[in-house]
Amino acid sequence: MSTVEEQLHIIKSGGVNIVPEVALIEKLKLGRPLRIKFGVDPTAPDLHIGHAVPLRKLRQFQDLGHIAVLIIGNGTALIGDPSGRNTTRPPLTPEEIAVNAATYVEQAVKVLDMQKTELTWNNDWLGTLLLPDILKLMAQFTVARTLERDDFANRYSNQLPISLHELLYPVVQAYDSVCVNADVEIGGSDQLFNFLAGRELMEKLGMEPQVCLTLPLLEGTDGVAKMSKSYGNQIGITDEPNEMFGKVMSIPDESMPNYLYLASTFTVEESEAMIAEWQADTLHPNTLKRRLAANIVTAYHSEADAQAAEAEFDRIYRQHEIPTDIEEITIQPAIDDDGLVYLPGVLQEIGFAASASEARRLIDGGGVQIDGAAIDQGEFRISPERINGTVIQVGKRRFARLRLG
Amino acid sequence: MSTVEEQLHIIKSGGVNIVPEVALIEKLKLGRPLRIKFGVDPTAPDLHIGHAVPLRKLRQFQDLGHIAVLIIGNGTALIGDPSGRNTTRPPLTPEEIAVNAATYVEQAVKVLDMQKTELTWNNDWLGTLLLPDILKLMAQFTVARTLERDDFANRYSNQLPISLHELLYPVVQAYDSVCVNADVEIGGSDQLFNFLAGRELMEKLGMEPQVCLTLPLLEGTDGVAKMSKSYGNQIGITDEPNEMFGKVMSIPDESMPNYLYLASTFTVEESEAMIAEWQADTLHPNTLKRRLAANIVTAYHSEADAQAAEAEFDRIYRQHEIPTDIEEITIQPAIDDDGLVYLPGVLQEIGFAASASEARRLIDGGGVQIDGAAIDQGEFRISPERINGTVIQVGKRRFARLRLG
Repeated sequence: MSTVEEQLHIIKSGGVNIVPEVALIEKLKLGRPLRIKFGVDPTAPDLHIGHAVPLRKLRQFQDLGHIAVLIIGNGTALIGDPSGRNTTRPPLTPEEIAVNAATYVEQAVKVLDMQKTELTWNNDWLGTLLLPDILKLMAQFTVARTLERDDFANRYSNQLPISLHELLYPVVQAYDSVCVNADVEIGGSDQLFNFLAGRELMEKLGMEPQVCLTLPLLEGTDGVAKMSKSYGNQIGITDEPNEMFGKVMSIPDESMPNYLYLASTFTVEESEAMIAEWQADTLHPNTLKRRLAANIVTAYHSEADAQAAEAEFDRIYRQHEIPTDIEEITIQPAIDDDGLVYLPGVLQEIGFAASASEARRLIDGGGVQIDGAAIDQGEFRISPERINGTVIQVGKRRFARLRLG
Repeated sequence: MSTVEEQLHIIKSGGVNIVPEVALIEKLKLGRPLRIKFGVDPTAPDLHIGHAVPLRKLRQFQDLGHIAVLIIGNGTALIGDPSGRNTTRPPLTPEEIAVNAATYVEQAVKVLDMQKTELTWNNDWLGTLLLPDILKLMAQFTVARTLERDDFANRYSNQLPISLHELLYPVVQAYDSVCVNADVEIGGSDQLFNFLAGRELMEKLGMEPQVCLTLPLLEGTDGVAKMSKSYGNQIGITDEPNEMFGKVMSIPDESMPNYLYLASTFTVEESEAMIAEWQADTLHPNTLKRRLAANIVTAYHSEADAQAAEAEFDRIYRQHEIPTDIEEITIQPAIDDDGLVYLPGVLQEIGFAASASEARRLIDGGGVQIDGAAIDQGEFRISPERINGTVIQVGKRRFARLRLG
């Protein structure tokens, strides 16, 4: 095993928050494999690489000799985690839970060392709880403390409804920690309240309380908001290699350290070395981003897929010099009696030509392309389908993806 | 069956509150026996006649042809009704619950017509609830609505703890109403929130919602505070006949209507007739109170016991002309070197003599008694024990019970 200092350095990489850090150090000093709990509710059918961040941290723990306790929350999913929400989660059916859970396990197997993983399903113990058991657990917590957490406090003060059953979520998640005898619980930063409830319950039941370790939420490809399907900035773990490679290439440079530490399979040492080179200007940011993109595609597909994706990326983007972030413009062009759209008018409308006559000259000069194919001389009236969802290019630098509204 | 108007007159006697009354009228119009739910948690081992008030109302319903559904809350007792409390109830053991429940049933059998009674135990259905069932019930209620009730609102705003499990009480009591398909639920006025939760849950589950009927809390023998062992103003149902008779005789006249309607076995018509006579000055209040006392002793013991108790009451109180409400006076008399108290000084201190010399004359004249026994001539110095807790009498009209402070 590595020294406590070496372990801490790796565990803390990526900007994790440890509550309390001194307790983690004490536990590491014991020299025995620690039990690292990670619970995931199978609520989202569409997984993105942000969902894998805790799995990567678990894998780091495993590589340091510790044990991952992965809890598939098929019991907690019936409640719905209220963390960070301002509405009650709609309930899932047992069938949805089963399908989603299978997807999670499939992904976890790709990231974790299954020899050092205990895979558990919390309905195994939650499903047998009867009213008196539940009452005893609930009696350990007060309403005031539970409503202090931000999500509840916000809803309560804004008079948004909190359903009574949502209060049970931290209680049963805490009970999970008791049942698996967790040394450390890891998860997103929005989970701190739930983790602390687990710490409290373990202490009240006379157990050595768990240490709470929260990870930053991985930002999406926009580099701003957290990765989420609803923000359209996610990199799905089932995205095709080409799409995945391109999406990683589209992140801003400043997001590279987070992606390296939280979403890649590079070791902490490798990531640190590359970041140092980049900051010393001995490694071009684009080169670093390519390594990152190749690493992530390799992780979710294969090295061959990554090489092919990089080649395709070069073919399309470098050779055609099409930028990776094309603005999307929604237009509502007039449709004439023949059902056609007047293309010079569209170019004028989106600001790619000062006037319709300039636009006609550009077309006739061969300088206007749709999805990389030049428009013919005099071809001014085109079907709406040809421009809906396609990339229109004028000259070498102006691009837009059109949408008919 | 009586007409709806006749039934309503009886049901409303004693100052009940019906929510909503129009719904009760509709249900009575159906002409079928209604199911009247009364749930009681076996938490108090010492029962007083105030606990029997809802049972007497149930009996009125039964006499009108309806069905009493008596629920012994051996399941709800595990939670503890938070109604009207500013602290969490301490949990009872299953053994305590069993003993208390037996006491309740014993009492209920004395009051109810068991041919028209369904005796149920709510742990029969609550005890089988699993986490998903409980979640579905809890999901029907919001935190804000639940915390609106006075007891919770007071505790929350005064930062007194509300334990999380207490929020479950109205939920499972509401579920009881669903399980027994209640038409009407009756209980103390502090139960209105719980009853309304039942009404709401039945409606949400597509059932005809119950009508909520609350009874005033019976005042204690002081005529002021609600009857409660902790106020020392209770008439226990296991009190001996003599004690019970005397306690009823000690209530203020103004409390007689409530005791007649809520705690006696007189019919509403009989009570109304006696109250009318009393108010027309054709019935002496003392005579009415004797009838009431005899009625209550008969209900909990027997008619023979009531007659004997009344005779004993006469012997002690009428023959000695000791009034039933003796003022209690706490004094701190000087104790001399022999450990004795100077009695004339005490009589002066409590205002029964204008001076110590007058007091000595009263004693020497045989006009001072302790617990009915005259003090001997010249017996001025007595032991403190002789006057502590005893009734001191001067002449025929002045009485006081002394306490050494």
